[in-house]
Amino acid sequence: MPLLVVGSIAFDSVETPRGKVDRMLGGAATYVALAASQFTPVRVVGIVGDDFGAEDARVFEKRRIDTGGIEHAPGKTFFWAGRYNVNMNERTTLVTELNVFSGFRPKLPDSYRNSRFVFLANIDPSLQLSVLQQVRIRPKLVAMDTMNYWIEGAPKELRKVLRHVDILVINDDEARQLTGEHNLTRAAKSVFRMGPRILVIKRGEHGALMLSGNSIFSAPAFPLEKVCDPTGAGDSFAGGFMGHLAQVGRINPGALRRAMIYGSVMGSFAVEQFGLKRIQALRLQEINQRAGKFAQLTQFEL
Amino acid sequence: MPLLVVGSIAFDSVETPRGKVDRMLGGAATYVALAASQFTPVRVVGIVGDDFGAEDARVFEKRRIDTGGIEHAPGKTFFWAGRYNVNMNERTTLVTELNVFSGFRPKLPDSYRNSRFVFLANIDPSLQLSVLQQVRIRPKLVAMDTMNYWIEGAPKELRKVLRHVDILVINDDEARQLTGEHNLTRAAKSVFRMGPRILVIKRGEHGALMLSGNSIFSAPAFPLEKVCDPTGAGDSFAGGFMGHLAQVGRINPGALRRAMIYGSVMGSFAVEQFGLKRIQALRLQEINQRAGKFAQLTQFEL
Repeated sequence: MPLLVVGSIAFDSVETPRGKVDRMLGGAATYVALAASQFTPVRVVGIVGDDFGAEDARVFEKRRIDTGGIEHAPGKTFFWAGRYNVNMNERTTLVTELNVFSGFRPKLPDSYRNSRFVFLANIDPSLQLSVLQQVRIRPKLVAMDTMNYWIEGAPKELRKVLRHVDILVINDDEARQLTGEHNLTRAAKSVFRMGPRILVIKRGEHGALMLSGNSIFSAPAFPLEKVCDPTGAGDSFAGGFMGHLAQVGRINPGALRRAMIYGSVMGSFAVEQFGLKRIQALRLQEINQRAGKFAQLTQFEL
Repeated sequence: MPLLVVGSIAFDSVETPRGKVDRMLGGAATYVALAASQFTPVRVVGIVGDDFGAEDARVFEKRRIDTGGIEHAPGKTFFWAGRYNVNMNERTTLVTELNVFSGFRPKLPDSYRNSRFVFLANIDPSLQLSVLQQVRIRPKLVAMDTMNYWIEGAPKELRKVLRHVDILVINDDEARQLTGEHNLTRAAKSVFRMGPRILVIKRGEHGALMLSGNSIFSAPAFPLEKVCDPTGAGDSFAGGFMGHLAQVGRINPGALRRAMIYGSVMGSFAVEQFGLKRIQALRLQEINQRAGKFAQLTQFEL
């Protein structure tokens, strides 16, 4: 089934110990859409400016990504510049220019309004809610991301959208900040009281956790010898995770665990090269091979 | 087969957000021995003072731990006092009194000298080497721990003992400090050049990694809702790990992976109560049950 993705489309300038790239196509919605498109057709909602050219659109269109929901506005596309430290585990934002993104009011094309699988990437929670209000019937699965900026700055709006969300996909710091619980098992229980029945915690080089009811699944990080650029790793994870679920069209424990692995696979590929380069050109065989390596990484017999 | 364990025996005063305990029996050799004794007979080499009483000896003797290698010296036993921060992931040392431990020269009773499985807990690397010299024939498996103090202060001696060691069991900071590599895959390759053919990296609340040749195994951390006292968690891990290998008497990929899980099981139990309390009273059924939970935590089917 198609996956509806709403979020930022941006140009990023990124500097890491491995090199530097100027104004490459990025943004949460872009990473989620590209990663998910390996598994299922994608519909993307975002906003871009005059500097978003035909070759940028082709990045989406070459994959099975419907770009009918990308609004073109006069002005410039969202621009972000950042630098990663030597260990790639911290980054400094050098420039944030919201540009046309500051006026973003997501509008779903009519053809998107029957979407059954929805991913709300990290944007203003009131915009996330407006997307859900535009979907015609209650989706089968809604997942969302958020960040410290909204947890601090828009707690009421965040709580409101969380009531309509099945899966919250955030990192460990955000989970702790949102719930005031350091212990992630207790943080999950607190999240469940806010609405979501599943909490997925992205932990970067420490893998990812999925908590639901009394069940916990731990996906390892893939041990890479060379990390090139961590930008978009978490969004690529979300894309692989949601892409797999939309592909199978069913939510059950087996599919959720596989989704965690495909998410981890896409996150691990994303960091191997700058920007979208690696996940854009991935072949299905590579994805399946790496998923097999995740199995080898964790399997044991008692 | 019996496991030979050499290291510190101490009294610890520990303060955590969950409470405070004064002068409880501890020390690396104690935790390793107690945890390993769930799986195999243990022989312990250490030194204690006049304040080490019959009831302390009974903690070992109630389990199948041979205490013939514990030297009784005039003076006081090694004493350590520390306080954990609110998230239990950092600790401050308040008091370190080496006492009789400063004169520790490990002497293996004759009955220990045929040991085939040896664990050298964190002590001066030249003392670790002297233990290996006292073992009559080359052991089947030698594993060791170390710490930043020796990595900085006795690098030559450390390199010397590493040449005779099969498995190095350390935490991620120590692996990075020892090798100068931040990336753990590259750190492992550097460790392999020093002698060990297997590197086990303890990562606390992020689980543990085992690297050997081109194979990597990732053991998850057990998600606990309540951590009482992290003291001895890493040593309990080492005890479970080595205890299982000594029990099966064979080193193969399956046994090594199971050993990682039993190590993780013992580490997860250790932190549930203060000091030795939890691992001292464990029943085999509890250990097997928790090992089963580790399987549930990671299993998936592609």
